[in-house]
Amino acid sequence: MCEDLFDLEEKRLEEEIKKRGARVVLLQLPDGLKPLAARLASVIEYAGAAAIISGEPCYGACDVAVAEARDLNADLIVHYGHTMMLKDLDIPTIYFEAHAKIPVERSVRRAIDILKPWRRIGLVTTVQHVENLEAARRILSSAGKEVYVGKASNMLHPGQILGCDYTNAKAISSSVDAFLFVGGGRFHPLGLALATLKPVVAADPFIDKAYSLDADARKILRRRWAEIEEAREAKIYGVIIGLKPGQRRLSEAFKVKRKMEEAGKKVYLISLREITGQMLRNFQEFEAYINTACPRISIDEETIFRQPILTLKEAYVMLGEISWERLLKEGII
Amino acid sequence: MCEDLFDLEEKRLEEEIKKRGARVVLLQLPDGLKPLAARLASVIEYAGAAAIISGEPCYGACDVAVAEARDLNADLIVHYGHTMMLKDLDIPTIYFEAHAKIPVERSVRRAIDILKPWRRIGLVTTVQHVENLEAARRILSSAGKEVYVGKASNMLHPGQILGCDYTNAKAISSSVDAFLFVGGGRFHPLGLALATLKPVVAADPFIDKAYSLDADARKILRRRWAEIEEAREAKIYGVIIGLKPGQRRLSEAFKVKRKMEEAGKKVYLISLREITGQMLRNFQEFEAYINTACPRISIDEETIFRQPILTLKEAYVMLGEISWERLLKEGII
Repeated sequence: MCEDLFDLEEKRLEEEIKKRGARVVLLQLPDGLKPLAARLASVIEYAGAAAIISGEPCYGACDVAVAEARDLNADLIVHYGHTMMLKDLDIPTIYFEAHAKIPVERSVRRAIDILKPWRRIGLVTTVQHVENLEAARRILSSAGKEVYVGKASNMLHPGQILGCDYTNAKAISSSVDAFLFVGGGRFHPLGLALATLKPVVAADPFIDKAYSLDADARKILRRRWAEIEEAREAKIYGVIIGLKPGQRRLSEAFKVKRKMEEAGKKVYLISLREITGQMLRNFQEFEAYINTACPRISIDEETIFRQPILTLKEAYVMLGEISWERLLKEGII
Repeated sequence: MCEDLFDLEEKRLEEEIKKRGARVVLLQLPDGLKPLAARLASVIEYAGAAAIISGEPCYGACDVAVAEARDLNADLIVHYGHTMMLKDLDIPTIYFEAHAKIPVERSVRRAIDILKPWRRIGLVTTVQHVENLEAARRILSSAGKEVYVGKASNMLHPGQILGCDYTNAKAISSSVDAFLFVGGGRFHPLGLALATLKPVVAADPFIDKAYSLDADARKILRRRWAEIEEAREAKIYGVIIGLKPGQRRLSEAFKVKRKMEEAGKKVYLISLREITGQMLRNFQEFEAYINTACPRISIDEETIFRQPILTLKEAYVMLGEISWERLLKEGII
């Protein structure tokens, strides 16, 4: 069971509830941690508050259930699995990062072989493994690598990346030949490859494997370019506004609509919470979409849309305001 | 195109926007009317306001996008396809019922044959066809039927039913042998059969067909009983709280949780906006669910859940507080 894999800080949870005298707590977990929901709800109830588990998907620290908490009269949000991103939310919110308790050494050792062509290595991870970066660095150093760990001012932990924020990687990108990502799943290392255009190797301690992301990243870049070209041909567009607190870019949406209208396009605004091809299937007139919410929704392979769905940056490439080459240089994420 | 099938009251839409001086309008449509979104957004923009189309699903008048409008700084909600149900919403809301312009006579004539065994007929419809009830009544009368149309105090139009409200049908149920439903789709006539346990025939003017719902209703009733029995065996339950304004039953959820705990069960609260099997798949501990939101979510065949998911009324059958027979008599919806 995954409670052995993550540090849930149950003692701190209990103390925070008691200290704040919370009455109704909304508990929010990313899908991978939802199997722990009942266990954590029990801790909340034991501390004297009513617990409501949010059943909604939760993809990041951008995605805090503020509207939900308000509608449920919750006076506290407990948000697991991400680092604090949004401050001054309408409802008090406590973040629990859920650091992984799994050792990373074996998977990092497996990565050494794939990293053979490169000497200077940028080391990055998700918040779950920030405490393991030092162990990974030692292994890389012993193997003769020069190791770089970025620390941008907007990030809490050195070397930490988010699905939508690679500033810690970009800060060292020009100094390194390749990146090693330590952590689970393809989502973060793929974003890293797209954001930096450097070779990326992932060391996944959960499945005890290491692998390269380069082929995936190349395939996605080819598809992004094709989608921009396809979107160029459309006459009627939908500009999507995300409803999640950290993904809501109202003024950006109004701005890109105006720019597109100046270029002679017909443009409508559409608001959505979960942005999927399924949700858009009932609209029949829109030939292409601009997604002003999370850019990963446009980019990731798994999400299938019938029409092209550009990121905000890609929309400006389509409009000719920035070049594809400059976009690649800055990183498409 | 479906703009020819429904009266969109575009003139009234334009006037309301101007009269109220709305700046940002959130336009909400059920999925069947979403193909008309761009057309209506153009009317809103022409009247001088910014238009944002809600891309979220919308299943009824219970489902007004208040939280969404608040998050988008919209000062007016324009809600198509349903009769006003919720008053005193936080954001001013105008309802457009979208009456169908399609004649119903042919499909009602087709129904006469199936209605042969019964003399006293209850006539019901959705808001889209309330203006056609008189035409349907004349055809039934000419065929020698005694026709009843209910008018309960909580319903705006005589004979009108909602997916979750059959009071106009229940008001006349003891006086009739069978019901004729006039309108599109199986959703409403199936609910009618489950709510009244009378024979139900549907006359669908969109596909020009008439058919009986009895076999479907019997199948669902057998399955409901089986789910109650299965849920009885569970030890850990999730009680689902719906987040949509007209489906949010917080105190009912807390109450049924308490009753179940008194009966020795482990119970957790879960909040959800769209309640689907897909959304619950990440929870692993819950062996059965009680759904305090829209009862149709539990009942309808299309929605597939891995675990039993009882309505609130069915939960009280499971707890032995009301009998299955009484539930059937009152109507499972």
